[in-house]
Amino acid sequence: MTDPEDLAERVRDGELRLHELEDHADYDTAAEARRLLVERETGAELDTVGDYAFPAERADPNIENMIGAAQVPMGVVGPVPVDGGAADGDHYLPLATTEGALLASVNRGLSAIRAAGGAEARVTKNGMTRAPVFRVDGVAEAAETVEWVEDNFEALREAAESTTSHGELLDVEPYVVGDSVYLRFAYDTKDAMGMNMATIATGEACEVVEAETPASLVALSGNLCSDKKPAAVNAVEGRGRSVTADVVIPGELVEDRFHTTADAIAEANTRKNLIGSAKAGSLGFNAHAANVVGAAFLATGQDEAQVVEAANTITTMETREPENGGDAENGSADLYASVSLASLEVGTVGGGTKLPTQAEALDVLGLRGGGDPPGSNADALAEIIAVGALAGELSLLGALSSRHLASAHEDLGR
Amino acid sequence: MTDPEDLAERVRDGELRLHELEDHADYDTAAEARRLLVERETGAELDTVGDYAFPAERADPNIENMIGAAQVPMGVVGPVPVDGGAADGDHYLPLATTEGALLASVNRGLSAIRAAGGAEARVTKNGMTRAPVFRVDGVAEAAETVEWVEDNFEALREAAESTTSHGELLDVEPYVVGDSVYLRFAYDTKDAMGMNMATIATGEACEVVEAETPASLVALSGNLCSDKKPAAVNAVEGRGRSVTADVVIPGELVEDRFHTTADAIAEANTRKNLIGSAKAGSLGFNAHAANVVGAAFLATGQDEAQVVEAANTITTMETREPENGGDAENGSADLYASVSLASLEVGTVGGGTKLPTQAEALDVLGLRGGGDPPGSNADALAEIIAVGALAGELSLLGALSSRHLASAHEDLGR
Amino acid sequence: MTDPEDLAERVRDGELRLHELEDHADYDTAAEARRLLVERETGAELDTVGDYAFPAERADPNIENMIGAAQVPMGVVGPVPVDGGAADGDHYLPLATTEGALLASVNRGLSAIRAAGGAEARVTKNGMTRAPVFRVDGVAEAAETVEWVEDNFEALREAAESTTSHGELLDVEPYVVGDSVYLRFAYDTKDAMGMNMATIATGEACEVVEAETPASLVALSGNLCSDKKPAAVNAVEGRGRSVTADVVIPGELVEDRFHTTADAIAEANTRKNLIGSAKAGSLGFNAHAANVVGAAFLATGQDEAQVVEAANTITTMETREPENGGDAENGSADLYASVSLASLEVGTVGGGTKLPTQAEALDVLGLRGGGDPPGSNADALAEIIAVGALAGELSLLGALSSRHLASAHEDLGR
Amino acid sequence: MTDPEDLAERVRDGELRLHELEDHADYDTAAEARRLLVERETGAELDTVGDYAFPAERADPNIENMIGAAQVPMGVVGPVPVDGGAADGDHYLPLATTEGALLASVNRGLSAIRAAGGAEARVTKNGMTRAPVFRVDGVAEAAETVEWVEDNFEALREAAESTTSHGELLDVEPYVVGDSVYLRFAYDTKDAMGMNMATIATGEACEVVEAETPASLVALSGNLCSDKKPAAVNAVEGRGRSVTADVVIPGELVEDRFHTTADAIAEANTRKNLIGSAKAGSLGFNAHAANVVGAAFLATGQDEAQVVEAANTITTMETREPENGGDAENGSADLYASVSLASLEVGTVGGGTKLPTQAEALDVLGLRGGGDPPGSNADALAEIIAVGALAGELSLLGALSSRHLASAHEDLGR
Repeated sequence: MTDPEDLAERVRDGELRLHELEDHADYDTAAEARRLLVERETGAELDTVGDYAFPAERADPNIENMIGAAQVPMGVVGPVPVDGGAADGDHYLPLATTEGALLASVNRGLSAIRAAGGAEARVTKNGMTRAPVFRVDGVAEAAETVEWVEDNFEALREAAESTTSHGELLDVEPYVVGDSVYLRFAYDTKDAMGMNMATIATGEACEVVEAETPASLVALSGNLCSDKKPAAVNAVEGRGRSVTADVVIPGELVEDRFHTTADAIAEANTRKNLIGSAKAGSLGFNAHAANVVGAAFLATGQDEAQVVEAANTITTMETREPENGGDAENGSADLYASVSLASLEVGTVGGGTKLPTQAEALDVLGLRGGGDPPGSNADALAEIIAVGALAGELSLLGALSSRHLASAHEDLGR
Repeated sequence: MTDPEDLAERVRDGELRLHELEDHADYDTAAEARRLLVERETGAELDTVGDYAFPAERADPNIENMIGAAQVPMGVVGPVPVDGGAADGDHYLPLATTEGALLASVNRGLSAIRAAGGAEARVTKNGMTRAPVFRVDGVAEAAETVEWVEDNFEALREAAESTTSHGELLDVEPYVVGDSVYLRFAYDTKDAMGMNMATIATGEACEVVEAETPASLVALSGNLCSDKKPAAVNAVEGRGRSVTADVVIPGELVEDRFHTTADAIAEANTRKNLIGSAKAGSLGFNAHAANVVGAAFLATGQDEAQVVEAANTITTMETREPENGGDAENGSADLYASVSLASLEVGTVGGGTKLPTQAEALDVLGLRGGGDPPGSNADALAEIIAVGALAGELSLLGALSSRHLASAHEDLGR
Repeated sequence: MTDPEDLAERVRDGELRLHELEDHADYDTAAEARRLLVERETGAELDTVGDYAFPAERADPNIENMIGAAQVPMGVVGPVPVDGGAADGDHYLPLATTEGALLASVNRGLSAIRAAGGAEARVTKNGMTRAPVFRVDGVAEAAETVEWVEDNFEALREAAESTTSHGELLDVEPYVVGDSVYLRFAYDTKDAMGMNMATIATGEACEVVEAETPASLVALSGNLCSDKKPAAVNAVEGRGRSVTADVVIPGELVEDRFHTTADAIAEANTRKNLIGSAKAGSLGFNAHAANVVGAAFLATGQDEAQVVEAANTITTMETREPENGGDAENGSADLYASVSLASLEVGTVGGGTKLPTQAEALDVLGLRGGGDPPGSNADALAEIIAVGALAGELSLLGALSSRHLASAHEDLGR
Repeated sequence: MTDPEDLAERVRDGELRLHELEDHADYDTAAEARRLLVERETGAELDTVGDYAFPAERADPNIENMIGAAQVPMGVVGPVPVDGGAADGDHYLPLATTEGALLASVNRGLSAIRAAGGAEARVTKNGMTRAPVFRVDGVAEAAETVEWVEDNFEALREAAESTTSHGELLDVEPYVVGDSVYLRFAYDTKDAMGMNMATIATGEACEVVEAETPASLVALSGNLCSDKKPAAVNAVEGRGRSVTADVVIPGELVEDRFHTTADAIAEANTRKNLIGSAKAGSLGFNAHAANVVGAAFLATGQDEAQVVEAANTITTMETREPENGGDAENGSADLYASVSLASLEVGTVGGGTKLPTQAEALDVLGLRGGGDPPGSNADALAEIIAVGALAGELSLLGALSSRHLASAHEDLGR
């Protein structure tokens, strides 16, 4: 059996390279050897990093040069009833975060939503995208390429789908900038987040484009995808799931739970989330959707870097006259609240979803693995995350508004 | 001693609420009780979630409703020499991620940087921001408020700094939109990421504004901050650290490590990261900076939701004539590569940095806790993350370019 | 016959309102009466404003409360050969502006393009858009509305096209934000800029949407069109014509005309138009395309306010190895230059194109009135304006670069 | 005396170049010769283009290759009382446009504002910007340059102000992207729009930067200015004047003039101008501010291409409880309406303001030439244009809302 001390020494002596350790020992021993090496070179102690709860080979497809695991506190919020296109009934939502008060805040929002009878949610668009960039000689060839692409969707579909048993090519949208041509491929990747599937399928389709047109591939991703960047193309046209969740909170409930009024919350939302974001030149018109999206992504094994665009959210809040003949004039207007996440990339199979703690978190949601029909688990996950984000928005706007009311009351000597 | 089974039952029976368990048991027992409850209600098994490596009370300020921890594989990349304004010498960078191939890719880039003699990095701007929104009667009061603020920086500074022993108010920038006035406060928060410090200090300053002007606070954050949203105000003016890292890679090294040329990499960067991002309406002109920023944030206890703006990066790549009289004409031009992260919010004290695995990761960097002088640890962390992002950009651009060259070679029958 | 003095007096006395004068006199007399009134109330003299070169009634559909005309100097640039999808052969381009040096600059660029054999240009996308916003009860109704729209394009097409003999509905794209549903209708409006046609047709289609779905119209324009605003939706997806023009300028010609090199121009373009614009959070990656677009719009009777989005331009400049075996190593690389205007809204019929001086300007281009086939005149106008913009970019970048070279030369004592 | 026929022939024969005609004849004859030439080569007749109302030499600094003038219908709207920081009392606003119904619409809005007692307006920020881009060797030199600039404002101010008797340097803001350094210079240019003044002054300051730092000028404009491009840096930080105008319209007046309610207008504004623009990835949160800005620019001799950023406007509309104890519950809430134009570049001296019709238009406003104190005329012009834009927003939102109400009424059988 291999001794980690010995392995560490051989790396230090230049006999082995850090990433080659798995070739000479089992995965856990390799990780241990790396910890030893790093500890000696840096003086750090890596006891808790090394105290992870799963066999290291289970992390094999997700990491290289493993030394252990980061442990991020995980909690649950809920339960909350979600009336979705795919999600249905009560759900606990696991969240992993280091941001104190976040779960308490989301839970306060969910509690109000639950008291209001639950939230509705719908995925209104779905498509994982990949957009290669090609070089052409000039605008004449660019126009020729665009025309060919528009006339030959079937050929591209056939090539792309030859690489996948699940994915379906939905659309190819061409964009021309000088002697660069970008083709934005969009796929239905079912329950997978689908970035790899889309990349491989698009690679195959690119060969057809290169064979049939004057275009020559420069990069398989040309940033019109757009992956892990805050881009308007995603905020406008969507990527992954475009999902909306909403709720109407009766006026008395707003006062009871948030100690403020629908009017005050709507005003804060308009001045902060709409006008403030407008003035900031923002693509994010919300209070803190990224907190919930990020924590849910971490808990359920999504791609943390995609929080960048997954959090693209517009939050709206407006007063509504009570349906049951309530008395809006006395400040008890109802509150309509919604969040619309344009580009929420989620999956329940593949990627980080297979890691042990993450798979358990998906089990809490009842959404681990492929859905029936395919895609329904990822749809449901998107809808539940959206409801979580809605709860977070309600709670934070409520808190901001009531603090304001408090100070206003002081000013007025009441 | 309290029995978790019993506690779980009492919650199910409505005697206790989920978040009250810590009032009736120690933290670990409370978490266990929650797991039991969730397991029964959802059918999930939470064995690995519950198998965390630290006493639950250590996570107390970072989570509520704790059930355990998400475990995310952590590895290291490096070492790499960083010649920074604060960072100096060789560093290993810990990264936690579920994205397979990420560490291998960053390491390939770091290896090239190391062979090139290391990277340079500098923090060129520093300021954590918070921007409350006030209501005024109209434009006349707005102008009056702006004028007062411009004339009374000292009064605002005194109020803001009365709440903190470390933070310094650097600037207050007013913005008017109709009857809303936004004041963007910027602070030097030293080694803390500083969001809480900035919020508390700004709250105090707001009272002065309300007392001395007609303005009335609507929300302590008016989204011109802008926190956890992809906003131009951050990409242009910065938030947290604005940090740039760069390197010149000799032509032969480019070919040796990336199997392509400086020309090809520069072309891919221009068509993808500059023109492609331009066409996408993006605030992110890079390939995948968010991957490195996100993984470093996760490993070192930063705020994962701030990846949204922390990843705001412009990557530039250009060919340079070899300084040592190399032969650019034969395709061996050198490659200048840089990343500029406009709004990297990092800290080495507070928040998630105190959690056990995260603190150990900071120890690997030698940057745990406050720096000497104050702020230097956070500066160094920013510089090292930037170098990691630079490595990731180099590696991915190299891979995209060489794949292209490969296919081009096939086309040409070579 | 009516006396303008008398009319002016009756307005001053409150007997008539300013806009009612055409009911009591011919158009020229009405305008004269208004001048008299304004002159007396303000002390201004309006002699040249009143000295316009056409019967006032010809301006009837374009203005109300007319007092005369603004006279803006008009010149011509060119001729320049354009090899376009619709434009062909040599063209003079009329430009009206008050910006000194603009025509000289564009002409310098056109002269270089002409010497290089002319420019190529293509319209790669065409569609005038109008996007009404509807209110629904919530996300469930929103999803229902989206589904209906996706399934009933034909019904919408029929309704929309019932209002126009020329226009064709190309596409309807739905977007959901909470309880708001936006439908972006895109039309081929042939040689008309088409905003009115699109608005009327969309109004008719909205009635079908309201009849068949739960959606209720709030505003016929919901700003996802987006008209006269700088919006990513136009820069990404286009509006009116998406048109690209390009040229390759041989290295010697670059030196001869611009006193600089292709390398220096490409560098200035990258640092200014690409990276500088990226850092500015811009949707415009060009030097001064708006100058040419604005001046051409003014001369040819386009809508001046649409310059806002019509100028959305990405300019690219790159060096190329000379095709004819030139000597790139000695600084004589060729220059590839392109402009891509994403949303150029132009027409050769309707709107301001019928005004006398504007119609004459269109005659200079040979593009007055409807084309054969329909749409070809507007396509050609788009292509020629793009070539004008390309010339302006070349000239300004050349000027910036050579000034730099000049100062560099001084520094070096050469 | 020179014969235009003869001159035209000499150009056609290649003896003279088109732009050299003023060297051989007076300006009007040169323009006539050009018309003859263009008429023959294109078959166009240029009678009205040639029938301009001023000596051609008066247009000398504004155009080259002059053939005549574009004549754009001009009308007036108003009068309207403006209570501004610089503007005071009643004003007619001249507008030149080809957009039918625009003046009628603005006038309807102004009429309501007048009935409401007039509008308030304030310039809250002022600074014309120019941002050169420099090349440095890398990030170390970039940091060195930034530090020098921050420490040496006085040296830069002295150099910049040595070139101008009026302008004052207000600020220099550095930005670093890799090996590019951008310095955004901001000037108070008093009553001049100031682009030229800022450019010349910045050119002088650049020489100091080049002499004192390692930075080397690449282009005098690096697009962080940002001139004639839709850039967030202007929308956020301002350029030229940042100006806000607002008004409260009593509920009865809203109904009387717009046949709708404050509630309906506020709703349309939120769904269209705020949420719709948010979803469109827009920098323009308004209905059609560009129409008014563009028409006022054309009438008063401003730079038409700057409409691109001058129209950057956020429009807000909200209901307010009537101050005089009105009855908000019966739908008669008052309407607060505002427009905030972030980057309105205007001047009353220089540029196109000296042209005859444009100067007369400025006389109508009483704002021709320099103000007392300097800058006050341009401030007043900014405020009056803002009020015009406010009127346009009110009128269009009112029209959209009432059309909606109309159809709603039909639906309900009322």
